[in-house]
Amino acid sequence: MIASTRSASIRIIGFGMGPQHVTPEAADALRSCDYVVAAAKSADDPLLAVRRQVCEEYGVELVAVPDPERDRDPASTTATAGYDQAVREWHAARVAAYRDVLEQRGGTAGFLVWGDPSLYDSTIRIVEQLGFDFDVIPGISAPQLLAARHRIVLHEVGRPVHVTTARRLREDIATGQTNLVVMLGSAPDLEGLEDWQVWYGANLGAPGEQLLSGRLGELGEASLRVAREHARAIDGWVMDLYLLRGPR
Amino acid sequence: MIASTRSASIRIIGFGMGPQHVTPEAADALRSCDYVVAAAKSADDPLLAVRRQVCEEYGVELVAVPDPERDRDPASTTATAGYDQAVREWHAARVAAYRDVLEQRGGTAGFLVWGDPSLYDSTIRIVEQLGFDFDVIPGISAPQLLAARHRIVLHEVGRPVHVTTARRLREDIATGQTNLVVMLGSAPDLEGLEDWQVWYGANLGAPGEQLLSGRLGELGEASLRVAREHARAIDGWVMDLYLLRGPR
Repeated sequence: MIASTRSASIRIIGFGMGPQHVTPEAADALRSCDYVVAAAKSADDPLLAVRRQVCEEYGVELVAVPDPERDRDPASTTATAGYDQAVREWHAARVAAYRDVLEQRGGTAGFLVWGDPSLYDSTIRIVEQLGFDFDVIPGISAPQLLAARHRIVLHEVGRPVHVTTARRLREDIATGQTNLVVMLGSAPDLEGLEDWQVWYGANLGAPGEQLLSGRLGELGEASLRVAREHARAIDGWVMDLYLLRGPR
Repeated sequence: MIASTRSASIRIIGFGMGPQHVTPEAADALRSCDYVVAAAKSADDPLLAVRRQVCEEYGVELVAVPDPERDRDPASTTATAGYDQAVREWHAARVAAYRDVLEQRGGTAGFLVWGDPSLYDSTIRIVEQLGFDFDVIPGISAPQLLAARHRIVLHEVGRPVHVTTARRLREDIATGQTNLVVMLGSAPDLEGLEDWQVWYGANLGAPGEQLLSGRLGELGEASLRVAREHARAIDGWVMDLYLLRGPR
């Protein structure tokens, strides 16, 4: 951890899927910030637009930081080691970009996290490397909104729910998991799971929201892919997840 | 499912750990309710008091429904089958009590859920049995607040998190789980896990909030029990949970 020259502090604020999920606690944290720092993938980054909307609602300035390029070359990212390294380098570049802003401006900087900072989000790890004081405010996470939309509990009575990534799904099923929330999906390969139930959601809370549920063999993988592309066509981005439950 | 005689609809609303977590979406849902139904374990039920506070903030009447007695006789609840049946009977009695209120009053009834309705909460299952139309609004869950307070992500990079109950902990560890959120704990038996890291929280968001973290062998089980009793002494109730992570 490298101590920085100018004093600043950071508030990591989960804002769920948009302004409808900003808790009073998160709103207070936002109002206490001098500015909010957010990565901008492009000039018209649609995910930045939602953060901008949240900042405007609470009267906080948004400082857009151009996002470093991430190495998505399949040759270097297929193996887990290559993937891990690509993620690490991308984080390091992000850290440097954020440090520049915080050292220049000082004060209290907010970091707005889509969903909740505790699940498949790198903000806490990035902020730890900045070496400033920080706190964390939770936000509604995607698995919760998925469950709410489908009006389900994420597990059967008294049983566990295993939250994992699409990349690890096969491995986790092989060790006996039969009730999984699968995040960070891209093209789900669900062959052999025809008898499993799926509850799927894409772009939850956004205009392009898509919901599907049923026996996977009846729904078909193709319908999940169609829903995914439909969400992307409407919103200009796509984030999806699903609950998978094996037959008893 | 038994259809009811009088028309009513239900909104199941997660409110996190208190008014600080009521999202704008949940606030809108609350304002749309004619009344909120809540179980009262006793006249001075401290968990009811928090619900009352939320209702007052949004100008909704709270209708307290005396909670049926739950069979906690160890002889009939030690075995899983006995436990399951005790829970089922308790749910059936709750359903009957709620149905009486909804059939008498009709309109839109809110059910306030501590934390989030998707995790170890029976409200959705109870409401399904009432046979009225319903929707679900997510709320901040305890594992998220635990992670926020400890400023951690619930899993290592790209790895899973297994959410389970204290009752199932040993079984889940035996199948290879090394990163678990453990809920519904009572007296944690953590023998043999001395090298595991624990991040513990009791009564998160309440005045009696307790946080502890460290290597379990250094902390000691006793310190977790002391924290638990300390939380109960302050708030008059206790709900705790922890993240357990095995050595790599």
